[in-house]
Amino acid sequence: MAKHQADHAEKVEMNVSEIILGSLNKGLGAMDSPLSVPQIVDQRWNLLHEDLSLPTAVLYEEKLAHNLAWMQQFIQAYGINLAPHGKTTMAPALFTRQLQTGAWGITLATAHQSRVAYEHGVRRVLMANQLVGKQNMEIVSRLLRDQKFEFYCLVDSAQQASHLGEFFSAHDQRLNVLIELGVDGGRAGIRNPQQLQEMLAAIHQWRDAIAICGVELYEGVLQDETAIRTFLNQAVELAAKLAKGNHFDRNPAILSGAGSSWYDVVAEVFSAADIAYPLEVVLRPGCYLTHDVGVYRQAQEKILSRNPIARKMHSGLLPALQLWAYVQSIPEKDKAILTLGKRDAAFDAGLPTPSLHYRPGQAAPRACPSHWELIRMMDQHAFMKISEGDGVRVGDMIGLDISHPCLTFDKWRYLPVLDSNFQVIDVVQTFF
Amino acid sequence: MAKHQADHAEKVEMNVSEIILGSLNKGLGAMDSPLSVPQIVDQRWNLLHEDLSLPTAVLYEEKLAHNLAWMQQFIQAYGINLAPHGKTTMAPALFTRQLQTGAWGITLATAHQSRVAYEHGVRRVLMANQLVGKQNMEIVSRLLRDQKFEFYCLVDSAQQASHLGEFFSAHDQRLNVLIELGVDGGRAGIRNPQQLQEMLAAIHQWRDAIAICGVELYEGVLQDETAIRTFLNQAVELAAKLAKGNHFDRNPAILSGAGSSWYDVVAEVFSAADIAYPLEVVLRPGCYLTHDVGVYRQAQEKILSRNPIARKMHSGLLPALQLWAYVQSIPEKDKAILTLGKRDAAFDAGLPTPSLHYRPGQAAPRACPSHWELIRMMDQHAFMKISEGDGVRVGDMIGLDISHPCLTFDKWRYLPVLDSNFQVIDVVQTFF
Repeated sequence: MAKHQADHAEKVEMNVSEIILGSLNKGLGAMDSPLSVPQIVDQRWNLLHEDLSLPTAVLYEEKLAHNLAWMQQFIQAYGINLAPHGKTTMAPALFTRQLQTGAWGITLATAHQSRVAYEHGVRRVLMANQLVGKQNMEIVSRLLRDQKFEFYCLVDSAQQASHLGEFFSAHDQRLNVLIELGVDGGRAGIRNPQQLQEMLAAIHQWRDAIAICGVELYEGVLQDETAIRTFLNQAVELAAKLAKGNHFDRNPAILSGAGSSWYDVVAEVFSAADIAYPLEVVLRPGCYLTHDVGVYRQAQEKILSRNPIARKMHSGLLPALQLWAYVQSIPEKDKAILTLGKRDAAFDAGLPTPSLHYRPGQAAPRACPSHWELIRMMDQHAFMKISEGDGVRVGDMIGLDISHPCLTFDKWRYLPVLDSNFQVIDVVQTFF
Repeated sequence: MAKHQADHAEKVEMNVSEIILGSLNKGLGAMDSPLSVPQIVDQRWNLLHEDLSLPTAVLYEEKLAHNLAWMQQFIQAYGINLAPHGKTTMAPALFTRQLQTGAWGITLATAHQSRVAYEHGVRRVLMANQLVGKQNMEIVSRLLRDQKFEFYCLVDSAQQASHLGEFFSAHDQRLNVLIELGVDGGRAGIRNPQQLQEMLAAIHQWRDAIAICGVELYEGVLQDETAIRTFLNQAVELAAKLAKGNHFDRNPAILSGAGSSWYDVVAEVFSAADIAYPLEVVLRPGCYLTHDVGVYRQAQEKILSRNPIARKMHSGLLPALQLWAYVQSIPEKDKAILTLGKRDAAFDAGLPTPSLHYRPGQAAPRACPSHWELIRMMDQHAFMKISEGDGVRVGDMIGLDISHPCLTFDKWRYLPVLDSNFQVIDVVQTFF
């Protein structure tokens, strides 16, 4: 494993081309024409000076840096590897940060996402999904022409294996796959020995075009720790069985799992796996980078309470992504309307939470009263419950924490990065 | 009104700069480098030849053209005006189509959206929202430097009016506003005579900076036709009151309402308004352009049954936006996993509906069996309920109709436009 750890640095190639931001994007400051990131930093936009057009989604640099370091330290304590799920942010500048902090590679969900990562310098991608369809295979095939590009995707059926074999054989290429293990009631992944045997038979018809490199699962479809441990052990057993049958074309074989809610349990079980064949354990949480104050804070609190290593680390993850909007109307004494809606924030795992209240001209934002709460979101508006006498006014700014980073990121093409003085010190671009 | 109808053509200025599509976008075909729209059309991508990377979101040209004509005919039958809500698509190429078909202007929800429309040639914008915040006012102020640009936004409080007056007075500009009428339990908008008087007093302190041009409401916050008719009549009464008090700075005054569910009732009530002052009625539906098979089909069926003019028109609206995804796994006999998720489709008003089933190589798609149904969506996956023996396979393509166009459009930066042979004949770009 040390060897693979050592050469991760080779897997980071910075994108040399300068990023130019178009001037027609929401949440930024005044731009008469497209600007580069350094040019934008030169504008010295400050959120509190109302230099940004609200609503905006901002990242806080200190918290990002904290979360990056926290997760890398956690992963290293287990002697395993991190391939953060890039679908969360789809921001290549953040992929680069993750790789520079020590990530083994970047996980992605589609061929398109894999290409975005490749074009921004990522040279090791775990596509934690089935590769299906002519044009998607074509995208991957083109990337594989670069011998420095290391790519893995999932396979879970004979039909899919045959499609892959046919395509990559015709292209004289060999595709690395991980066998996905599933669970009844779950998502993709083989459920039983018959599916496994049929799939292996299909793969073995295309040995020159498909290389079996490991075993993968996504435990996040389950809700219960006992069921998850059973599922994880099944993956270890499957890896042992494949090793014994000489099915692996990679040494070490990859053993991969973990979304953002159970990565501690996956780390514990997989790092202890002993199957008489070398294993490279790869975990794939994505939401740790920005964290949230909703579903993932809840999940993280459980991790901090149950995991001995997380407990020993001096702090947990911090919410690094925040939305800012104006109060546009207070039409009823207990209701403020904000300039923010489903177009700007995730709403599938709880609505955003009012956190900071700022009136332009004041020295600094204050914490929102705890009874301020979003009770509804429409496409472009949010309804915030207030009380008479709270002293909120039209034109005030509200900073809102979020639940579910993934579906918040995909509402934004550019996110300003702020220092602790709310000064814009960087802008990250997304590619959804 | 005839005069205003006549000069709408002046309000369409085509964007002369050629649109270049970046090569890193999902749902398109193979692109080694950015291409212009004509270059893309030259590629002769065909959905059924698997030339597009799925998932993709496509528009059907014939259905778009049908819907454009249908709504314009409906609006003209009432002798009123259409300012389609552009926030639905945020696709300036579609704004141009709407204006060319006879729309009076384009409605938008934010300063950012208004700027996007302006930069693509739209010269009359109704921003159906309060304008709040220094940078947002700055965006509008810059646009107003073009004397050919006609802009209206909403005002509903003394505080907001004072902010606007202060800003635009300092910029030696006069801002056109519509007074928003609201309803208890609703969104923004004045609720009572006291709010009105305070707001008018604030506006009159800034007469050189704020011009009162009409009255606006959004009836879509109500669910009941009787309540909506009452609300609409209140708006007419407010317009009469403002006319009588000589508050209008525009002749005719604008009277505007209508989302996509009640535009027929608004057309009926507002077109019949008689207040001894000239009125220009402007309706703002947005979802008619692509329609759907969910909430807006339900609303449209009610319109077709209750409205005499809609009933006489030979057909209703057609669903013009469809998503396509692959079957990536069939892990259980009654469950197929599709390469499509919350990252690709609205899910707040019903999940997408499987409509077409196509196996690459077949002559044409067939209708999906009616028991195929999405039962769950995750970020990048959908679970489709099937039955054993349905003959679905990994690698098959599924076309899905949608519910709620707005939150589907904002998941896509480019949408291919297809002819009836599933050939790509155009690509529209969005600016969210």
